[in-house]
Amino acid sequence: MSNFADRLQRRIDELGNPSCLGLDPLLSYLPESWHKEFDFTKDEDIYLGLKRYCFDLISAAADIIPAIKPQMAYFEQYGSAGIRVLQDIIVQAKSVNMLVILDGKRNDIGSTASAYSDAYLGENSLLAADALTVNGYLGSDGIVPFLEKCHKNGKGIFILCRTSNPSAGELQDLKLSDGRLVYEAMADLIAEWGSNLTGEEGISSAGAVVGATWPQQAKALRERIPQSLFLIPGFGAQGGTAADAIAGFDQNGRAAIVNASRSLMLAWKKHGLKHDDFAEALRLEAVAMRDSLREALAL
Amino acid sequence: MSNFADRLQRRIDELGNPSCLGLDPLLSYLPESWHKEFDFTKDEDIYLGLKRYCFDLISAAADIIPAIKPQMAYFEQYGSAGIRVLQDIIVQAKSVNMLVILDGKRNDIGSTASAYSDAYLGENSLLAADALTVNGYLGSDGIVPFLEKCHKNGKGIFILCRTSNPSAGELQDLKLSDGRLVYEAMADLIAEWGSNLTGEEGISSAGAVVGATWPQQAKALRERIPQSLFLIPGFGAQGGTAADAIAGFDQNGRAAIVNASRSLMLAWKKHGLKHDDFAEALRLEAVAMRDSLREALAL
Repeated sequence: MSNFADRLQRRIDELGNPSCLGLDPLLSYLPESWHKEFDFTKDEDIYLGLKRYCFDLISAAADIIPAIKPQMAYFEQYGSAGIRVLQDIIVQAKSVNMLVILDGKRNDIGSTASAYSDAYLGENSLLAADALTVNGYLGSDGIVPFLEKCHKNGKGIFILCRTSNPSAGELQDLKLSDGRLVYEAMADLIAEWGSNLTGEEGISSAGAVVGATWPQQAKALRERIPQSLFLIPGFGAQGGTAADAIAGFDQNGRAAIVNASRSLMLAWKKHGLKHDDFAEALRLEAVAMRDSLREALAL
Repeated sequence: MSNFADRLQRRIDELGNPSCLGLDPLLSYLPESWHKEFDFTKDEDIYLGLKRYCFDLISAAADIIPAIKPQMAYFEQYGSAGIRVLQDIIVQAKSVNMLVILDGKRNDIGSTASAYSDAYLGENSLLAADALTVNGYLGSDGIVPFLEKCHKNGKGIFILCRTSNPSAGELQDLKLSDGRLVYEAMADLIAEWGSNLTGEEGISSAGAVVGATWPQQAKALRERIPQSLFLIPGFGAQGGTAADAIAGFDQNGRAAIVNASRSLMLAWKKHGLKHDDFAEALRLEAVAMRDSLREALAL
């Protein structure tokens, strides 16, 4: 399969939309009527209900948004039923031409990182996605197995760099004796790890997670590691605006994708629609998000 | 439920054994005869085969070893079938009085860390264990939801500090401008996070992962954060000896647990037994590991 960064950037270009639908499903997000239809004390009904909810979101977004980012915690919390939903979502998203970025932030020693890379970036796994988020705290031998899958299978990884949460700086902003901050040292490792994964679009498939909530840091990181693909979470519910989110794009308005989860899933509240109309509301909000990013990028 | 560190230390004391059985199952670890009995192209057979294998290991170890550490990657790679095995293992281990430390190294922003904490340290989850390994790169708000579960439900966490792998130092050993190394700064955060989780045994339930492969660092960390419970992986197959592994114990030979995975699961090779006798071999190796740790600790 071709280079992940190429595939993602080209789909972004086709749709004119550098945004990503985050799927963080909770049973409480499902319409009230579904809570009467299903019995959520039963695993099978959890599977069927969550699957229908996610499929409805995917169908509504597929002609607007190039990629989904399922947040694995929200599936894992429902045990094997949740994992079955995740398996089905991956297949469904591919069938409607959406790329799948699994947000698992996995990290471990080499032999275990191999098992994770088989699971999520493998060729024969039921959970094989296009890309996975990972955490680089363990250094190279925890990352190399994922890089091998990027090379061999045209997959991607996004390594945590400067995260979107309020306390991100507690460790990430500590100053090193050489003058760099910890997240800048991580950025330098990311550039090194991704150095030979650059595709035809000039972007590396081993990218960085850089929160939309920290535009100054994002801008500096873009200059520091110009070829890295950025996954930019924190737009919407976490407080990142379009102007904040585009700080990490390159000078051509490329090489980055902005994720929103709750602001898209729960758009029915903002748009004054009924809970049952959550998918229609997602379309309205997805178009608004796309247009606000395009305007901020002056495209 | 009572404090996790108390429960773990007391079980260690009862069995006179500060070791932990790591479960990193691969289908290739199952005896050849099982590969004839089961059809591992089928999900249901993967579930049944892996479950039997793990149950056999647990039964063999239960009167020798106080805890198991399932490495989640090895279950996740088998999709929902693997997660079903994990669910069953957790129940089975509890029934034979073994504590369960899930090795998932989870990490995320606050809202998502909440979902992970519900999944693995919750009260009603199918995957609720006694403790979970986590990664502190995101800072406090990614850790607080886990700490809340430690308080409320008597659970534990082990935060990655100095990991056992060869490239651990690439990020973790960088020197800060204040003279500390990155992993020492992480250790200081760990002590802070665990400061009010200390139980009757004087040990905090928010502990640290400190590799058996780095005894000097482990010794220094024990002095730096004296009340933290240490999970010490890397014994056996990764090269850590008993003398290395005990470097992180306190002066009374307590407050730490040493994990071995492959050296216990694959003990039949070392002991010249048949593959079918893997459980009997595990007992031999578990006793040898226990005795070597006791000897090194001069107990």
